[in-house]
Amino acid sequence: MTPTLTGFANSPDRGRGRGRDMRVRWALEEVGQPYDVRLLTFAEMKEPPHLALHPFGQIPTYEEPGLQLFESGAIILHIAETHKGLFPAEPGARMRAINWMFAALNTVEPPILERETAMLLERDESWTVKRQPGLDARICKRLDALVAYLGDREWLEGMFTAGDLMMASVLFRLGSSSLLQRYPSLSAYVARAEARPAYRRAFAAQLAVFEAGNRA
Amino acid sequence: MTPTLTGFANSPDRGRGRGRDMRVRWALEEVGQPYDVRLLTFAEMKEPPHLALHPFGQIPTYEEPGLQLFESGAIILHIAETHKGLFPAEPGARMRAINWMFAALNTVEPPILERETAMLLERDESWTVKRQPGLDARICKRLDALVAYLGDREWLEGMFTAGDLMMASVLFRLGSSSLLQRYPSLSAYVARAEARPAYRRAFAAQLAVFEAGNRA
Repeated sequence: MTPTLTGFANSPDRGRGRGRDMRVRWALEEVGQPYDVRLLTFAEMKEPPHLALHPFGQIPTYEEPGLQLFESGAIILHIAETHKGLFPAEPGARMRAINWMFAALNTVEPPILERETAMLLERDESWTVKRQPGLDARICKRLDALVAYLGDREWLEGMFTAGDLMMASVLFRLGSSSLLQRYPSLSAYVARAEARPAYRRAFAAQLAVFEAGNRA
Repeated sequence: MTPTLTGFANSPDRGRGRGRDMRVRWALEEVGQPYDVRLLTFAEMKEPPHLALHPFGQIPTYEEPGLQLFESGAIILHIAETHKGLFPAEPGARMRAINWMFAALNTVEPPILERETAMLLERDESWTVKRQPGLDARICKRLDALVAYLGDREWLEGMFTAGDLMMASVLFRLGSSSLLQRYPSLSAYVARAEARPAYRRAFAAQLAVFEAGNRA
């Protein structure tokens, strides 16, 4: 059974891998599960066939016989539960990995998303420059805490888990900012994640989609 | 085995139940699991003993023998997995419930949180009034989609699940705004959630903490 994802036919980040399909591709590569991708234009994402899969009209979605999911967090949890490689076997350690998935999405990502939204939707507003220090401070408060926890750990809980996959994916969004550079240990953590062969295969796959779309 | 949560010794919302401990209390009441609560001042939340449990220095945390968690999403998932009442038995339906938990926390809550942050941290800034329509529009985009999905469903996926518990908890944050009132079907959904006996017991318990703190 090969699952099917949806992704951007023409990625708005020009193949830099910031779309949430990248997180799911990476998880599937980590566990060695082949997958198909159905590409969608922005218009198609807002039409009834896709809205039946994803009420919020976004990507990615995940389809396998008998199951349709539309949140990358849930998709990755499902992949981790049904394959070896992303969750520790011991139940308590597995729950700690899930805990870090939620921490990435609900504690670390919101201020990063808020800053991105300001850059994207309020770029030309008079207040955007003035708000920047506050936005950065809210992110740094989270990064300070994460660095203090991480210490000299290689991964958040011993082995690489779905929690690291999600945390690194959230931190990737800071890519072009200088915020991450203020934190050498976090930069090194992100670099370790990016160096994983599964990450590189997933990145290459989404980049190939963007490049093919541009040639067309 | 009685688990222990942490909560605010003096809730900043004055007992209105907007703290994330409320979500966990509600989940425990739904499944009939008694629990203990350890109350913390804001100062104690930033001190080493609590930071060892919660790297980001917040509440709630969850402790049982052999397991410590600090994200309300993960805590509720754990409660739902280890008790009857919050997840359907069929694996696909269980994954759909988990999907809605992530949708609540990572798709619906971020714009609500952004609006709350603006009211809390940027209340007196010159731009805050001007930003309001944009902040509201970002929330309404999500609520429009949720209403379209909900239709005349009682709950998101047939029976009440941890997905509804989380979605309703996120929507409660809109409480004092007029945004929710624009959506009669969502207001009714929230009212159905608040009418649940388990919700009422949890709400009363957190209110009693606030009132006791005020008498002290």
